[in-house]
Amino acid sequence: MVAKLAEEVGAEIARAKAVLICGGLKGVMEAVCKGAKREGGTTIGILPGSRRDEANQYVDYPIVTGIGYARNKLVVKTGQVVIAVGGSYGTLSEIAFALGYEIPVVGLKTWQMIHHSGQIDQKVHYANTPKEAVDLALKLAREARPPEEAREFRT
Amino acid sequence: MVAKLAEEVGAEIARAKAVLICGGLKGVMEAVCKGAKREGGTTIGILPGSRRDEANQYVDYPIVTGIGYARNKLVVKTGQVVIAVGGSYGTLSEIAFALGYEIPVVGLKTWQMIHHSGQIDQKVHYANTPKEAVDLALKLAREARPPEEAREFRT
Amino acid sequence: MVAKLAEEVGAEIARAKAVLICGGLKGVMEAVCKGAKREGGTTIGILPGSRRDEANQYVDYPIVTGIGYARNKLVVKTGQVVIAVGGSYGTLSEIAFALGYEIPVVGLKTWQMIHHSGQIDQKVHYANTPKEAVDLALKLAREARPPEEAREFRT
Amino acid sequence: MVAKLAEEVGAEIARAKAVLICGGLKGVMEAVCKGAKREGGTTIGILPGSRRDEANQYVDYPIVTGIGYARNKLVVKTGQVVIAVGGSYGTLSEIAFALGYEIPVVGLKTWQMIHHSGQIDQKVHYANTPKEAVDLALKLAREARPPEEAREFRT
Repeated sequence: MVAKLAEEVGAEIARAKAVLICGGLKGVMEAVCKGAKREGGTTIGILPGSRRDEANQYVDYPIVTGIGYARNKLVVKTGQVVIAVGGSYGTLSEIAFALGYEIPVVGLKTWQMIHHSGQIDQKVHYANTPKEAVDLALKLAREARPPEEAREFRT
Repeated sequence: MVAKLAEEVGAEIARAKAVLICGGLKGVMEAVCKGAKREGGTTIGILPGSRRDEANQYVDYPIVTGIGYARNKLVVKTGQVVIAVGGSYGTLSEIAFALGYEIPVVGLKTWQMIHHSGQIDQKVHYANTPKEAVDLALKLAREARPPEEAREFRT
Repeated sequence: MVAKLAEEVGAEIARAKAVLICGGLKGVMEAVCKGAKREGGTTIGILPGSRRDEANQYVDYPIVTGIGYARNKLVVKTGQVVIAVGGSYGTLSEIAFALGYEIPVVGLKTWQMIHHSGQIDQKVHYANTPKEAVDLALKLAREARPPEEAREFRT
Repeated sequence: MVAKLAEEVGAEIARAKAVLICGGLKGVMEAVCKGAKREGGTTIGILPGSRRDEANQYVDYPIVTGIGYARNKLVVKTGQVVIAVGGSYGTLSEIAFALGYEIPVVGLKTWQMIHHSGQIDQKVHYANTPKEAVDLALKLAREARPPEEAREFRT
C-alpha cells in the first residue's frame, strides 16, 4: 500500500516535469521510480553500494557512491525538497537531515517525531494524498530560501 | 540543563573505562567530552568539517572528515552502543542510523518517534538519569550480536 | 589548451551517445560539459560542496554531495570507464581510485606514475587525441569485467 | 621489505610521541601500527568497511567509516603531515589528496609522478630511511601553514 502511494508520487513528480532523486534500490524507491517512468519522467538513483546493477530497473542515472547509508545525506542535499513516504529508518534519517539542512519536507504516511518536551515537531508538512504531497512539495521548493542564505546544518 | 546531563554521561562513560566517541563540536558534544576528561577518560571527536581546530578543547583525538553531516553515520558505526542526549536534528539522524544498523540506542531527554500507524517506535531504550543511561548502554553493548551477524542496514 | 581538448572529449562522448559524468565544477570539468552539450549529450556533475549552484552551466543533473574531494571516488565509481584529462591533483586521485577499483583509465595529457622500482606504471592507456581517447574508452568499457567479478579495491 | 620499513616508521613516530593515523587494515598499515605499539605509541585506524574487527591487532582506536576508499581523504585530513610508504594505488590516492589539500607529504619507497609536460612533480619530499622520513615529517608539520590559511583543494 505504501508502494502504491509511492508509485503515484512518482507519477505526479513526472507530470510536474520535476526530476526524481531517490536512493535507487528496491521497495518504496523502486515504486516511486516506476511511477515516474510510467509518466515519462527522469529518475536518478543515489546508491549506497559499489555496484551500478544494484539500481532498480526504473533508474535512468545510477550514482554509485559506495559510502553506505551516509548517502542518505546526498539524496537529501541533491533534491530541492524532500517527500518522505513510509516508515523505514532510512526515511527517518532523511527527514532528520532535511530538517537539519533546512530543506522543506513533505510527509506521506511517515514518521512523526516527539521532542523530549512532549511536543510533536512541527517542521514536517504532512499530506494525505500523493497529489497533495507533490503539489505542496513544488510550492515549498519554489518558496525555499536561496542556498546562499542557508546555514550548513541546524543542530 | 541538557549540557549538565551530557557532562554527567561523559563522566560515567569515563568511570566505566569506556572510550567516548562523539561529533567533536560544541554544545552537547563539548559537555560530554568535558565530563569524560574530568574523570580521566579518553575522547574521540569525529568532525564534520575540514579543520581540526573545530574540535572542542576536550577532544583527545580529532578525526577530520570533511564530509559534513554524513559523518553522523561514522559516529554511530564507530561506537558499539549509542547514547542519544537532547533534541537536535543531528541526534535524530544518529538515532535513525543506529536503528537502521541495529546498534543499540539509549535515549536520555531525546526524541520519540511515532510510526504512521500511530504507534510509538519501541526500539530506543529510554533512561532517566546519566548513570542509568550509561549502565544500560554498557549492558546492551555486551549483549549486542557480534558484527558478523549484523545486517548492513534495516530499512 | 587542455580546455580545448576537454571540450572535444565531451563532444565525442556525446556523439557516441554516452553519458558524461564529471566533478561538475569549472575548468576542465566545465569544458568537457560544454563540448557534450554542444553535441546534444547528457551531463552529470558530482559536486564536492553543499550547493547546487556550484555546478557549471553545462551540467544537466548536479549531484550535491557535500563530502568534499572524497567525491572523487564517486565520480570514478559512477562511470564505467575513466578518461583522465590534464594535470591536477584531483585528476591524479581519480586515476589512483580507478586503478584501485580496476576500472579502465584512458589518459590524455595527464600524469604518468613511476613505481619506486623505477618502472612506469603500465595500467593507464594513453591516447593522443580526444577521438582516440573516447574510442578507446568505449572499447575498454565494453570489455570490462562484469562488476560481480570486480574486487572492492586493489591495494 | 616495505613492511620492515613501515614498522620502523611506526617506531620512530612513537618515539617522537606523535599519534599514528593510518587506514587500519593489514599490510603496510599493520606493520606501521606494530612498530608504533612496540615503542608504546598510540594508533588510530580509519577503516574503509563497516566492521571494527577489520582493524589490525595493533590499532588502539578503530574508526568505522563504511565509506570505502573515500576514507583515504579522511586519513590524509586527520593527519598534520603524510608519510607515504610503498607502492599501492591507495597510497597514490593519499599522495594526491595531500598535495591537493596542501598537506606536506614525505615519501619513502613510493610513487613519483610525471606531469604531462615531462617534468617530475617536485612537491613530495623523499626520504631514504624511516628515521629521515619521520624527522622530516615532524619538521614539515611544525612549519605547515595554520589551517585558517589553507585552501580547500588545489586542483
